[in-house]
Amino acid sequence: MSIINVFEGAKDSTNAMALATTVVKNAALELIALELESNTQEILDANKLDLAQAVANSVSKSLQDRLLLDEKRIQALADAVRLIGQLPDPIGDSVRGMKLPNGLQVQQVRVPFGVIGCIYEARPNVTVDIAALAIKSGNAAVLRGGSAAEKTNQVLVSIIQSGLVGAGLPKHAISSVDAYGREGAVELMKARGYVDVLIPRGSAGLIKTVVTESTVPVIETGDGVVHIFVDESADLDQAVPIILNSKIQRPSVCNALETLLVHEAVATQLLPGLALELEAQGVQIHACPKTQVIVPSSTPATEEDWFTEYSSLELAIRVVKDLDEALAHIAKYSTNHTESILTEDIHNAERFLAEVDSAAVMVNASTRFTDGGEFGFGAEVGISTQKLHARGPMGLPELTSTKWLVRGNGQIRN
Amino acid sequence: MSIINVFEGAKDSTNAMALATTVVKNAALELIALELESNTQEILDANKLDLAQAVANSVSKSLQDRLLLDEKRIQALADAVRLIGQLPDPIGDSVRGMKLPNGLQVQQVRVPFGVIGCIYEARPNVTVDIAALAIKSGNAAVLRGGSAAEKTNQVLVSIIQSGLVGAGLPKHAISSVDAYGREGAVELMKARGYVDVLIPRGSAGLIKTVVTESTVPVIETGDGVVHIFVDESADLDQAVPIILNSKIQRPSVCNALETLLVHEAVATQLLPGLALELEAQGVQIHACPKTQVIVPSSTPATEEDWFTEYSSLELAIRVVKDLDEALAHIAKYSTNHTESILTEDIHNAERFLAEVDSAAVMVNASTRFTDGGEFGFGAEVGISTQKLHARGPMGLPELTSTKWLVRGNGQIRN
Repeated sequence: MSIINVFEGAKDSTNAMALATTVVKNAALELIALELESNTQEILDANKLDLAQAVANSVSKSLQDRLLLDEKRIQALADAVRLIGQLPDPIGDSVRGMKLPNGLQVQQVRVPFGVIGCIYEARPNVTVDIAALAIKSGNAAVLRGGSAAEKTNQVLVSIIQSGLVGAGLPKHAISSVDAYGREGAVELMKARGYVDVLIPRGSAGLIKTVVTESTVPVIETGDGVVHIFVDESADLDQAVPIILNSKIQRPSVCNALETLLVHEAVATQLLPGLALELEAQGVQIHACPKTQVIVPSSTPATEEDWFTEYSSLELAIRVVKDLDEALAHIAKYSTNHTESILTEDIHNAERFLAEVDSAAVMVNASTRFTDGGEFGFGAEVGISTQKLHARGPMGLPELTSTKWLVRGNGQIRN
Repeated sequence: MSIINVFEGAKDSTNAMALATTVVKNAALELIALELESNTQEILDANKLDLAQAVANSVSKSLQDRLLLDEKRIQALADAVRLIGQLPDPIGDSVRGMKLPNGLQVQQVRVPFGVIGCIYEARPNVTVDIAALAIKSGNAAVLRGGSAAEKTNQVLVSIIQSGLVGAGLPKHAISSVDAYGREGAVELMKARGYVDVLIPRGSAGLIKTVVTESTVPVIETGDGVVHIFVDESADLDQAVPIILNSKIQRPSVCNALETLLVHEAVATQLLPGLALELEAQGVQIHACPKTQVIVPSSTPATEEDWFTEYSSLELAIRVVKDLDEALAHIAKYSTNHTESILTEDIHNAERFLAEVDSAAVMVNASTRFTDGGEFGFGAEVGISTQKLHARGPMGLPELTSTKWLVRGNGQIRN
């Protein structure tokens, strides 16, 4: 079968998916959850083969961990699917509407995109997540989950398709192009006319490739060189737990802290104790020259460090002269994901909120709060770092487009 | 000066533009309107040079007409700028907000994109339009207006920059890359990191090039292969004026009718009289075989005709068996801009509204109503035919992004 047939299969199912009622979509999700539970052993068997291959290929421990499914993780996937079933269905929601002077009734309503493409790496949980989100939002999806998780994903997609069919929805509404190897990803990025939006999930390198190569519109996610600026006026007792939480609570995710900027007036007071606590938790500090003097155990930061998303227990620290220098540093090095200022000064707080051009800008809070779950969206498609369509945590409504319905009784334009 | 300097100039002005109050932005717009009026002769002189070049290059009459500015058109441009000054400023509008259980105050607010790129052809009015819309929405803009209007655009951009400076805003917030020839367009499409969104305005060919070549996110506009389907149950007395209005009122624009689909049960009743009226207005009919029998004066339609946006006094007509065949035809050939059904049957009306996947779907109304002005937006950035970010007529709010403001007092994540 040609890869075009996969795209056509997805596209041919869009009408049925768009017209499916919430009841039918939820029935499909419940069937998928049930089949995940009843086919746990089959999933585990496939996953073992992928893991064995990963070990044979000497891939990193963290990648192996992302690949791994166990009974607990499979149950968590089934639970997540059920949770998506409980979320409000955005399709058909009226966004705005008006009656024009000539009597035309105009209404903007939420409709599915059509076909969502997703390119990701070695994360079988994304297969289930994205499929469930796509189904609930009335979309079809074409998935490219990468070779490392190919056998696991194959079982998962067949479970998902079985759930669709059980609910009377088209089997190929969720399809995979994993069987086409690298060509699958390349063709997915060029599938204009078949795929309406492409969402890459994974490393900065993967996202950059997709953004650069794709002719399909892309929603850029992830990639967070996240900053905290400790202002001169900050409450330093409050600052330490916020910094530790932002860096350490889950260092591998995109909203974790990567660069700490400290006002020079509080550097000698804050940094020695903070460094001790960070180092006690295993954090390696990359320091500017001024920080190095205060924290001799740190290593010198290179220019590269300021651009780096460590996604691990490493932190860059720079002492700055004032808020202006902090804002300039952020403007230069940030990926515009999340930045937080710790301050007691209302003017500096408001200036930071107004001038930092990031998806989420915070005052006196941990950067870890940029999250669909924390924002109450119930599920998260990813965190958009672009400005078009969606910015910051994306929920179900961000997986929709709109259309204008116009009802008349013979109106013509003068 | 390198073209990168132009991009940097625009980017460096984004902060000032984003922070500018409505009062200051409106002052800049009023100054621009005044300078358009007081420099009319200078604009006309430059425009004459562009027109002379166009005549020397034997460009089409319609292109010459698009290029032409006269006193009346310049006054209309000044009026349009003032109108944009009167529109509500979307920047700072709160889109949604909530207080999280932990006390965090979260607010999503409208912010400018930053730098808007616009690529267009031989339409000096777009220079003023886009600049005014960008200024009002707090954006900077880099314009590429094409060689045919280069001298006119040069004068217009200098007027706009003078208005910006007069209001205390950065001169290079509105800049042109016309001086860089074709390279200007190419570099604009690759200006990731400088340009946040690119809006092409012009021919289908131009838009296709931009969508395919650009690595900057694009909002696709225009390109309307617009359909009307006359259902079996249609009120035929109402149908004729709607069809004539959709085709003839302004055939060069994207919401004008291009293909008429007629239910076979009413074809012999509707088409002879309709064809007479169309032909009396100079419309050339490209007909399917069944239509040809009824309208012998028509020319046979080729497969190519169904894909064609004539943008002129030509119309393709096809007789279809039923609503299913009409929907299938639209799904295959439409550019998903605007489609209208003429029917008295509520089920067919609702089915058409639900199943046609276009930016605007209408019942018993002229397709010419898909328009920002008609929808009450006060100004129109263009009509988006993509599904991401904006779909259908775009007003000022569609020229904005959002960001999340999070205000806390020491919250950390568990």
